[in-house]
Amino acid sequence: MVDLADIRAAAARIEFIAVRTPLISSPALDEAVGGRILLKAENLQRTGSFKIRGAYNMLSQLSPEQAQYGAVAFSSGNHAQAVAAAGTMLGIETTIVMPEDTPPVKIENTRRLGGETVLYDRYSEDREEIAQQIADDRGATLVPPYNHEHIIAGQGTAGLEIMEQCGELGMQPDQVLSNCSGGGLTAGCAVAVNALSPDTRIYPIEPEDFDDTRRSILSGKMELNDPHSRTICDALMSAPPGDLTFAINKRLATEVLTVSDDEVREAIRFAFRYLKLVVEPGGAVSLAATLAGKLNLSGQVTVAILSGGNIDPTLFASIQAAA
Amino acid sequence: MVDLADIRAAAARIEFIAVRTPLISSPALDEAVGGRILLKAENLQRTGSFKIRGAYNMLSQLSPEQAQYGAVAFSSGNHAQAVAAAGTMLGIETTIVMPEDTPPVKIENTRRLGGETVLYDRYSEDREEIAQQIADDRGATLVPPYNHEHIIAGQGTAGLEIMEQCGELGMQPDQVLSNCSGGGLTAGCAVAVNALSPDTRIYPIEPEDFDDTRRSILSGKMELNDPHSRTICDALMSAPPGDLTFAINKRLATEVLTVSDDEVREAIRFAFRYLKLVVEPGGAVSLAATLAGKLNLSGQVTVAILSGGNIDPTLFASIQAAA
Repeated sequence: MVDLADIRAAAARIEFIAVRTPLISSPALDEAVGGRILLKAENLQRTGSFKIRGAYNMLSQLSPEQAQYGAVAFSSGNHAQAVAAAGTMLGIETTIVMPEDTPPVKIENTRRLGGETVLYDRYSEDREEIAQQIADDRGATLVPPYNHEHIIAGQGTAGLEIMEQCGELGMQPDQVLSNCSGGGLTAGCAVAVNALSPDTRIYPIEPEDFDDTRRSILSGKMELNDPHSRTICDALMSAPPGDLTFAINKRLATEVLTVSDDEVREAIRFAFRYLKLVVEPGGAVSLAATLAGKLNLSGQVTVAILSGGNIDPTLFASIQAAA
Repeated sequence: MVDLADIRAAAARIEFIAVRTPLISSPALDEAVGGRILLKAENLQRTGSFKIRGAYNMLSQLSPEQAQYGAVAFSSGNHAQAVAAAGTMLGIETTIVMPEDTPPVKIENTRRLGGETVLYDRYSEDREEIAQQIADDRGATLVPPYNHEHIIAGQGTAGLEIMEQCGELGMQPDQVLSNCSGGGLTAGCAVAVNALSPDTRIYPIEPEDFDDTRRSILSGKMELNDPHSRTICDALMSAPPGDLTFAINKRLATEVLTVSDDEVREAIRFAFRYLKLVVEPGGAVSLAATLAGKLNLSGQVTVAILSGGNIDPTLFASIQAAA
């Protein structure tokens, strides 16, 4: 199991690699939602999302022998860029298996950061199989997007920073909202926050038709998303919760909340107009939950994680134009 | 004259009003320019620019009698929003004289923040005369956009924070780049930075056809911009440097640098794509100077101020689409 010591060790490994992203205050947001919100701006992170935390934490622990055979990952985009960047920094060759409908900006960035890309059809092919085959052929190490202790511990460094930064402001968060898909960010942050502030409530936030974590926690067994579901939150469309992430999230999540695509679009517009931040759809679900009134914010200190900002310019423009 | 004590006093007045905006690091930017850049993100400030610092510092020092007759300001937009917001917070009625070609988002925001707006023609009417007339008619206090000690001291709190935040990172800036028009931000920050780190170089940055501060410093007398000049940097089109701001900037500026509108557009695109920040044209000139190679950055710690983010969605979209 991942504990606070693992997360502190990860924080030491990534100290000069990941950006200590700011915890942003916005009077305009506080007024709009009627509460005190602090935004953990992981959209400002190296490679544009929190994913570098876990990727670097894992790759930096490969043995010299493992490192020489390279690493392979499957990802809808942000994990891809992170693994490519971490590999380049560590001198490890990386191959990334990506859905062919990934936003082009994420594919381009993965290549620019030094990753070899292999594209597949999200709806007919099995990405884990493709990645495993490449790993077997080359002797490469598979870097899973969330269901690995080193990944969870790495993502948890965002939660550790949230607690440190709240402390610097003389505050304790009453509740933390984390964007959730495979559940790595949520699990890591939940462990860090819960260890340092057991009374703080943890709310994973999912797109409404991709609420597998919500339904799995309610039923007590692994529930799947409808394979025909679609969402603009491309970063949150991954396969079922992992057994490691689910075990943590089941134990530590207060309640899972969901938001619609329209609520996400509204959050992206609000971020542009009032926060002056660029947020991608999957990175905006926690902000959307606060703006859409999905939980009580009055008299509370609420931290919402903006998990990424890698949005295609054309999609961004169309969302803004629809205002 | 404005000194460090005035700026510290201003910092105490605005402590719970202005956001202590983050000093942002970006590995992507550092790699692009070949140096270490820290971005003072005043685009994330309350009302979307640094202007709230000076406006609140001045309005909060009005006597009860002055306050009851209200305040009037002339502004291309960001100062307008700031005066309106500060007035509303302090219970002081505000009237803002704005050019009629101001980006609509700034006019709307000024009204939303509680300011009464009076529009005029930037090229045929004299805004100072209009504002002075309103002040005389109502007994209201004129809040100038830059040429006032309380305004300069307020804007200087951004420079004080830059020095504090660099200190927290264990760094001393070798050079600070400040977007410059009337020169209030530059003068205030120059005083704070110079007092705390006399060896740090100060570079005001201007749009290339609005380089009145540059030419005035070189010639030693007040030079004017060509009234036919145009730039996309609407926030940096103000009238000549003030006597107070000019006296400070002449003494403390190392050299004034200029950037073209195309270099500004490129900076806005870079900020969107790699920094995930929304920056307005006038807010992007310092970033543009770093990206366009206007000064040596190698081996230096360079602070660039992003002074505002109030850009109209349609202009933003057209700049991104031109990439």
